[in-house]
Amino acid sequence: MDLKQYITIVPDWPQKGILFKDITTLMDNGEAFRYATDQIVEYAKEKEIDLVVGPEARGFIIGCPVAYALGVGFAPVRKEGKLPRETIKASYGKEYGKDALTIHKDAIKKGQRVLIIDDLLATGGTIQATIELVEKLGGIVVGIAFLIELSYLDGRKNLEDYDLLSLIKF
Amino acid sequence: MDLKQYITIVPDWPQKGILFKDITTLMDNGEAFRYATDQIVEYAKEKEIDLVVGPEARGFIIGCPVAYALGVGFAPVRKEGKLPRETIKASYGKEYGKDALTIHKDAIKKGQRVLIIDDLLATGGTIQATIELVEKLGGIVVGIAFLIELSYLDGRKNLEDYDLLSLIKF
Repeated sequence: MDLKQYITIVPDWPQKGILFKDITTLMDNGEAFRYATDQIVEYAKEKEIDLVVGPEARGFIIGCPVAYALGVGFAPVRKEGKLPRETIKASYGKEYGKDALTIHKDAIKKGQRVLIIDDLLATGGTIQATIELVEKLGGIVVGIAFLIELSYLDGRKNLEDYDLLSLIKF
Repeated sequence: MDLKQYITIVPDWPQKGILFKDITTLMDNGEAFRYATDQIVEYAKEKEIDLVVGPEARGFIIGCPVAYALGVGFAPVRKEGKLPRETIKASYGKEYGKDALTIHKDAIKKGQRVLIIDDLLATGGTIQATIELVEKLGGIVVGIAFLIELSYLDGRKNLEDYDLLSLIKF
């Protein structure tokens, strides 16, 4: 299945000059959604994952079905002030802006094998912050999976110590 | 499985006097997460669902695995300014604040049978706005499923025309 055909390119969003890759038209299609999820599940199967971690909100859309299919838990990474209990924090710069991400302190047990999932790899800022959070809590990042990779931004070079999967390349 | 034991009660969050029901400790547990998801899948199976719709961000956490398990698509309902293409909008009041929700105009085809999923039923404001969006686009709301229902807020009375499921009651 050619997943790329389900992605909608939205010009000048969220700001002029950006060609935004909209995944909602892929999610809206039951077959494409299931196929994409199963590709990541297949990749994860031999990695003995204990937990899936994904940054809000689009990381939840792919990450939660993968966690469900693998039979493991899902820990959300959220922007500051969104998680109700004690958190740790990591700052990051992203394609358009700057922000901080948090995770609950008890979300990961030391030594757990973690698969990180997000919708899109741009420069890699969000994922670097997510890795920092996972590793601070003693988790082992055994894989990182994206629906989309913007190859021309070369975010992959910032993540070369990790095993990456991306299903669609632009 | 008693799902309630996996919910963490957080006092005075996000503001004084609120006993927040934190679902992250349920999601973090692979067995509880799968069991909760499967309960909703079981409920949905005989309803011939075409599409799952869920409001951000916690509606994604439950809604996306259910859509995956049913083999149907998932359409996100998001706060204003988060969806990149043409949307319609509905306003709502919630337990602590006021806001507007949007959905892509092409997210639902006329006549599609829709299951709405969210983490928690409080007064029902978020879900009433979500129903409004689905119905404006010609979707038929055949069921609404929650992980948690705050029975003492009686949000159910605002949704009496719809078929409701809640897995955990407080």
